[in-house]
Amino acid sequence: MNVVELIRRKRDGGTLSAEEIGAVVRGVTDGGVTDYQAAALLMAIYFRGLDGAELAALTDAMLHSGDVLDLSDIAGGKVDKHSTGGVGDKISLHLAPAVAACGVNVPMISGRGLGHTGGTLDKLEAMPGFSVNLDESRFRAVLRKCGMALIGQTEKLAPADKRLYALRDVTGTVESIPLIAASIMSKKLAEGIDGLVLDVKVGSGAFMKTTERARELACTLVDIGRRAGKRVTAFLTDMDQPLGRFVGNAVEVAESIAVLEGRGEPDLVELTLTLGGEMLVLGGAAKSFDEGRQRIARVLEDGSALERFRQCVALQGGHIPNKAWFPSDHDNVVAGDAGYVQRIDAEAIGMAALRLGAGRTRKEDAIDHGAWIELVKKVGERVERGAPIALSSRSNDAAVAAEVRERVRGAYTVGPEPPPARPLVLEVIR
Amino acid sequence: MNVVELIRRKRDGGTLSAEEIGAVVRGVTDGGVTDYQAAALLMAIYFRGLDGAELAALTDAMLHSGDVLDLSDIAGGKVDKHSTGGVGDKISLHLAPAVAACGVNVPMISGRGLGHTGGTLDKLEAMPGFSVNLDESRFRAVLRKCGMALIGQTEKLAPADKRLYALRDVTGTVESIPLIAASIMSKKLAEGIDGLVLDVKVGSGAFMKTTERARELACTLVDIGRRAGKRVTAFLTDMDQPLGRFVGNAVEVAESIAVLEGRGEPDLVELTLTLGGEMLVLGGAAKSFDEGRQRIARVLEDGSALERFRQCVALQGGHIPNKAWFPSDHDNVVAGDAGYVQRIDAEAIGMAALRLGAGRTRKEDAIDHGAWIELVKKVGERVERGAPIALSSRSNDAAVAAEVRERVRGAYTVGPEPPPARPLVLEVIR
Repeated sequence: MNVVELIRRKRDGGTLSAEEIGAVVRGVTDGGVTDYQAAALLMAIYFRGLDGAELAALTDAMLHSGDVLDLSDIAGGKVDKHSTGGVGDKISLHLAPAVAACGVNVPMISGRGLGHTGGTLDKLEAMPGFSVNLDESRFRAVLRKCGMALIGQTEKLAPADKRLYALRDVTGTVESIPLIAASIMSKKLAEGIDGLVLDVKVGSGAFMKTTERARELACTLVDIGRRAGKRVTAFLTDMDQPLGRFVGNAVEVAESIAVLEGRGEPDLVELTLTLGGEMLVLGGAAKSFDEGRQRIARVLEDGSALERFRQCVALQGGHIPNKAWFPSDHDNVVAGDAGYVQRIDAEAIGMAALRLGAGRTRKEDAIDHGAWIELVKKVGERVERGAPIALSSRSNDAAVAAEVRERVRGAYTVGPEPPPARPLVLEVIR
Repeated sequence: MNVVELIRRKRDGGTLSAEEIGAVVRGVTDGGVTDYQAAALLMAIYFRGLDGAELAALTDAMLHSGDVLDLSDIAGGKVDKHSTGGVGDKISLHLAPAVAACGVNVPMISGRGLGHTGGTLDKLEAMPGFSVNLDESRFRAVLRKCGMALIGQTEKLAPADKRLYALRDVTGTVESIPLIAASIMSKKLAEGIDGLVLDVKVGSGAFMKTTERARELACTLVDIGRRAGKRVTAFLTDMDQPLGRFVGNAVEVAESIAVLEGRGEPDLVELTLTLGGEMLVLGGAAKSFDEGRQRIARVLEDGSALERFRQCVALQGGHIPNKAWFPSDHDNVVAGDAGYVQRIDAEAIGMAALRLGAGRTRKEDAIDHGAWIELVKKVGERVERGAPIALSSRSNDAAVAAEVRERVRGAYTVGPEPPPARPLVLEVIR
């Protein structure tokens, strides 16, 4: 393989064969391709893109750079959900047990939060004792017993993606839809699933700021999945305000448990019915999307999803604390003007939570699981001048407290009239 | 400096400040910028280009990454010539002494050949004893004594260009006009010259295959020179057949000496008058281009340019051998059809000479200074079926001999009518 010739061909708008892409990915994994040549090729791909066949080959090569789980010995459908990352997105925590309670296995491998978006693993670890680092045999055992397991990515899963992602991060080639799509799908397809539901966030708090970009990513993801022989559905969902009312780690677990107790926030419940309903269809446990939604609604009401969650937490070594498991001391943010909330900049809320210690700016940073923000008022709700619109955990550092207050207040846009209703689920791509 | 942010800005079509470009070039030179980040930035520049101010800043930073000669203590104008590389291009060897004989200093720093194009240094070294590696004080001494000096690039000249060029070579980012232009001009402006004449080759044997690309490069080079306060003129010249009748090393020196003896090939003489005439104008030794041409013609006829050449060769330790300084044993290539030569693919002739040992495919390769090709027939000339159209030095390897014959024959296009006359000098850009 002549790497320079491949770089030049892609640079000039040509296509690479599956064999050539396979050789590059092997070279990236074993060091046979230098970082500078990989960087040049990534930038050429940023500008020229990859066609469907190239993308399928790239995903396949990345997926096979490490272990690929074979779950065929576990009965029933195996379906996962992936979200492109939002603020206040605790959906996985209650979605997985709801789907599992309906008879579809959810072998979920999640990531950690970075920057303003939270990560499922960090939220799970807010439960004392909960282990996200299971080896394969324990992962299988948990999945077999309760139909779900929630773990972190191991070193053995798609190592080529790890090396490529690290390189993209320092060479300005993160924001490439084909590269994003191959990265997501290589990890998800390594899980041994039959079907996948994608939650592609759109808006200020999301990686994709516009519906057009989000749609392009969603179509690319669905196409890769179809070429790999999997059933994949993508939903574009609104991230022009955080999901639910709480942003943090322990606090989001508590809010998620409220959904499992049948008293969830309307937006959380709606998104759970949507994603879960489709997961049941893909996993063969519902004939239609509507039937799937109804079944999910039932297990949220009758306590069986909650029971499944408790079972999983116990199997993974954790326990669910009592109510007082995050500090209730708080700071207030009050409204400057009376009116109706028009939007809440999710990125600004995420940054405020990060500043309080709920997230990390670098991979090595520690997290304060007890830091939190509550959105007392959400979009469409009436606020009065001087009344609280949001609360946050208290910081001992006055400068941090001031900055958080500033960011949270700045995140709110208040206007004289109620804003037009904006649907939570914008589009579905099957 | 945040390199990732600079890469992203260039990637998105933004511009970099002179300070930012300076910091990147310093980082490239001292290792503070990693190869993979430099590679990503080079590819982004390949796609997005550089504006005039960015290009001036890049050239300036590369030029100041090493030593910059100050020749202000040497009286008279200091003008150099640079060619973008052709086949059979021995112009420098007789142009420099002709210009020097007219009173303009030529402090010429040249390169070696690579691939199908020859290098001035390799030709000079075909003269026994000739040293192209003079230190600065000897270089100055030679220049002061005979108004010219012909040396190779030192390690101290534009080291950032060396590192960037090596990286471009292995990352598919060679063919970028701004990067080519900055590379050329950073080395030339480090020579301490007042003026520069550029010979930008166009055609099959040249790096620029079309007039449009060559014009773009020429305009870019002239603009960089003007922004650096230098007088620069570029000529676009034809490379749809090799220059002169000989391709090789010793053989090209002999052909160059023939020009200095007043019996040069018409195309060589014409190009020498053109480039030399302009160099005299830029160096202040002629009031007009026509006057410059006439002065160059005179020193080629009256022997003063030849005398200057002999003086320089002696000062640089070499001597000019007798006629029998390259092997006269030869192989023939004969015409398949009668007719008129329409064109001679210069790249194919260059590749044939390379195969005979006259050039190198890798920088480390040794050169056979005695290998040669003679174009018995050139464009517009009549050929007869079975009569020789070209000769070459004999190879002991039958496979090489057969390949050379094949390549040389394939380089000739013969047609029934004389082709329309094509001017040697296509355009001038001042």
